[in-house]
Amino acid sequence: MDVIGCNLIGGECSCEGDVPFFAQNPATVEPLPPEFREATANEVDRALLAAERAFRSYAYSSPQRRAAFLRAIADEIVGLGAALIDRANAETALPHARLEGERVRTIAQLRLFADYIEEGSWVAARIDTGDTGRHPIPKPDLRRMLIPLGPVVVFGASNFPLAFSAAGGDTASALAAGCSVVFKAHPAHPGTCEMTARAIQRAARSADVPSGVFSLLHGWSHAVGLSLVRHPLTQAVGFTGSLRGGRALFDAAAARAVPIPVYAEMGSINPVFLLPSAAAEHADAIVHGLAGAVTMGVGQFCTNPGVVVGVRGEAFDRVADLLAERISATDAGVMLYEQLAFGYTSAVTRARALGAEVLTSAALTETPPRARATLLRVDASHFVADATLRDEMFGPVSVLVVANDVAEMELVAMAMEGQLTATIHGTPAELIEHARLVHLLERKVGRLLFNGYPTGVEVGHAMQHGGPFPAASDSRSTSVGTAAITRFARPLCYQNFPQASLPLPLGDENELGIWRLVNGAMSRDAIS
Amino acid sequence: MDVIGCNLIGGECSCEGDVPFFAQNPATVEPLPPEFREATANEVDRALLAAERAFRSYAYSSPQRRAAFLRAIADEIVGLGAALIDRANAETALPHARLEGERVRTIAQLRLFADYIEEGSWVAARIDTGDTGRHPIPKPDLRRMLIPLGPVVVFGASNFPLAFSAAGGDTASALAAGCSVVFKAHPAHPGTCEMTARAIQRAARSADVPSGVFSLLHGWSHAVGLSLVRHPLTQAVGFTGSLRGGRALFDAAAARAVPIPVYAEMGSINPVFLLPSAAAEHADAIVHGLAGAVTMGVGQFCTNPGVVVGVRGEAFDRVADLLAERISATDAGVMLYEQLAFGYTSAVTRARALGAEVLTSAALTETPPRARATLLRVDASHFVADATLRDEMFGPVSVLVVANDVAEMELVAMAMEGQLTATIHGTPAELIEHARLVHLLERKVGRLLFNGYPTGVEVGHAMQHGGPFPAASDSRSTSVGTAAITRFARPLCYQNFPQASLPLPLGDENELGIWRLVNGAMSRDAIS
Repeated sequence: MDVIGCNLIGGECSCEGDVPFFAQNPATVEPLPPEFREATANEVDRALLAAERAFRSYAYSSPQRRAAFLRAIADEIVGLGAALIDRANAETALPHARLEGERVRTIAQLRLFADYIEEGSWVAARIDTGDTGRHPIPKPDLRRMLIPLGPVVVFGASNFPLAFSAAGGDTASALAAGCSVVFKAHPAHPGTCEMTARAIQRAARSADVPSGVFSLLHGWSHAVGLSLVRHPLTQAVGFTGSLRGGRALFDAAAARAVPIPVYAEMGSINPVFLLPSAAAEHADAIVHGLAGAVTMGVGQFCTNPGVVVGVRGEAFDRVADLLAERISATDAGVMLYEQLAFGYTSAVTRARALGAEVLTSAALTETPPRARATLLRVDASHFVADATLRDEMFGPVSVLVVANDVAEMELVAMAMEGQLTATIHGTPAELIEHARLVHLLERKVGRLLFNGYPTGVEVGHAMQHGGPFPAASDSRSTSVGTAAITRFARPLCYQNFPQASLPLPLGDENELGIWRLVNGAMSRDAIS
Repeated sequence: MDVIGCNLIGGECSCEGDVPFFAQNPATVEPLPPEFREATANEVDRALLAAERAFRSYAYSSPQRRAAFLRAIADEIVGLGAALIDRANAETALPHARLEGERVRTIAQLRLFADYIEEGSWVAARIDTGDTGRHPIPKPDLRRMLIPLGPVVVFGASNFPLAFSAAGGDTASALAAGCSVVFKAHPAHPGTCEMTARAIQRAARSADVPSGVFSLLHGWSHAVGLSLVRHPLTQAVGFTGSLRGGRALFDAAAARAVPIPVYAEMGSINPVFLLPSAAAEHADAIVHGLAGAVTMGVGQFCTNPGVVVGVRGEAFDRVADLLAERISATDAGVMLYEQLAFGYTSAVTRARALGAEVLTSAALTETPPRARATLLRVDASHFVADATLRDEMFGPVSVLVVANDVAEMELVAMAMEGQLTATIHGTPAELIEHARLVHLLERKVGRLLFNGYPTGVEVGHAMQHGGPFPAASDSRSTSVGTAAITRFARPLCYQNFPQASLPLPLGDENELGIWRLVNGAMSRDAIS
């Protein structure tokens, strides 16, 4: 299947623009055909008008139809076969095995959302039945449920060309909720996005949902993204990427005449805290786990453990030595695009200039787009005092932070900005002993791990992928797992509505058999 | 009980400031003793430090303790007796009977939140149990629940000196969630706020919760409010008031280095649509209902029906005549404070200048703080074309909008900005026939009523009080009812945590007996 290089608006190819760009093969830094064109202002407008038109019927489609659509997308992606993986590999330098795993996850999450909306309780129906005889005023019949927000804009992430891209988590949860999607492709993998978008459009045809429910727009500059966020028809934004990019979109959305929610998943350094027993008793296992988590995928995960905090002494020194050895032995890798590797190199150089000690050999001897994994070390007092040392360095690097004791580890935790995750290694008894550290970290993170590694974000019901700013722009939401569906929904209450005009989830009969809060009690029963 | 005129920070009186102000008796426009002082920057800082310190223990207090605290607040407010009502009446000119009703509601909602958190399922626990044997990688044990955000700032509303003030909805839901509260008193009823705040502090002592869990700050200018929103320890903001005020707070919060959520409930004109049968067959009843809703409390409800849309013809003319007669016969009333009445007069004057026809006699002959109810009329085409006619006019006024047919009513609905409510009058058959109007309104509102009046916001589980901007700054949230608790909470996920370190709602045993989503199924069972 060929990549043509066009925007896809309401099922049709559109190439109005005259600003060309190419994807690049990161390994060779050579352009990859075909030529793509930045979407024009008119194309942005057409995509959102198509999304608005589609929303008006799609929002009222049955959960069964939407579930069939999501499953059809999954099937169409499977149907793309090796061609999709080959193109993604050419555009991102991510290995085939990794991309195949990512495809499995992408398909699984589409199907998970299909199951979730077919079950149907996600609308959080609440019913307070009325009482016309109540004095002094009758009690109204109130029925409340979540409804989809409208057309939403989703930005593809560079580091997950499948799972956080055209048919990724945000698209899946938005389509599941009943929203239409205008998708802004990441310019580092536009061909992968186009192939996926065509799969979504075929699925829309086969599931008989309106073609405007999904459009794909390309753009190399920031202009396309900003005009999507500023468009009056846009009702919410999903984004995964840098703090700078996410903040710019957040600011643009907040400055609108009608502000809209922005779910930006941004930077995180995912601190790992080694309580005394961990370094002393499990150094080998922890080094093995950390080395894998730091270097896997050339460190290009938002959950990369960028900081490891331990207590000064022989045990932590041994962890440092072993980890430096393991990381030094890791082959250099090609990053997703050249600029990322330049950014990585300059971030590590800056940390060194600020006094971080380099523990790995041969650091920074690679020329972008290649990057070599690095291990740094600083004292906790220094790390606490200099906020720049706490900035995310996107790539295969971690900073060992040496604290004098657990009390100083707590100061490190307090100094942290919001994080996607924090991890504690130790014994269950230590976790109880150091409950204060746990409580400090609970204030800072979306997910708290014990004796694990933050990479590997499980897609399920109980996942939370997000966290206090700047990990995410909205700590109340997750971008992974079924709970993500609520980011694209809001409650609507019907007062004294006739049964025939109520949405199915709110009818007395509870035809869908969903869980509802009826007069304060959870129930799947009909109301008699 | 005397009103002293001071800020209350962590249980102590504080009067550092040198900018004095007085409450005013709206009826006489005379100052009411005592003198109050604007809170200083230092007092803002001290209040938030006290709130932060209190939060660190209060967030981990048991639901039983928090419920006891909420009930103690209710009891202490009851204990204030007639003195509270007298002071509120002196400060707001709201009649005793209305204030007594508002006290009933305030107490009821505190007790409702107490029951709600004692039941406990609001934390929305989700558990995906692990599988260490899964290939290729073990499945982690994930447990997710809502936790309180931290210290929050709540602004009192002028029009509900009890139910949306010091111990009002936002304070109740924040304290229920486990947040500490710094409350900014509305300068129009500072004495009522002080009395209520002292009741809260007595309740804190008797329920043994830290005194910093609630502080009261006064301020006449915007400076105090803005510095509260900008304070780095503030984690969220609740506000009820004007669009201008709410937008200023929203903008300040969005511009922070770390943005925070702002729940501002702002302007709404709460359109009422009369389908053909309604005006033809139920004119008398509708006129009775509308006249009450428009003039009650001198029209000072955010759910005041500010617009009534009908179809041109004899039936709607009759509604106009009868309603004009009823409204003309309504005595002028004293508004909450002088500026509101000036604002009301100038808004109605502007609408007239824009071509609205005045149907009531003796309009605008009153001198502020008194205001006389007014009925206006414009053609739908005019109303659709001029956005200024759709601005909220806070006070006892409604605009009859004359459409040529139901199709033109739909254009009116489309032109509407976001609203707290919309109401449709007609038969169930008409509701089905005009489903397109219903669908248009669903996009615009938080609550949709059939054959009713939007005033009278029921406090329960299924209420939604909020709506798309500018009705509210965050359409995903409600400021009334138990669902409001989630505005002050965010999810946190524990991965592979030992049972002994998990919060009670997430433990295998489900000691609290709450509803949880366990491996995708709702259950109150323990996990074996």
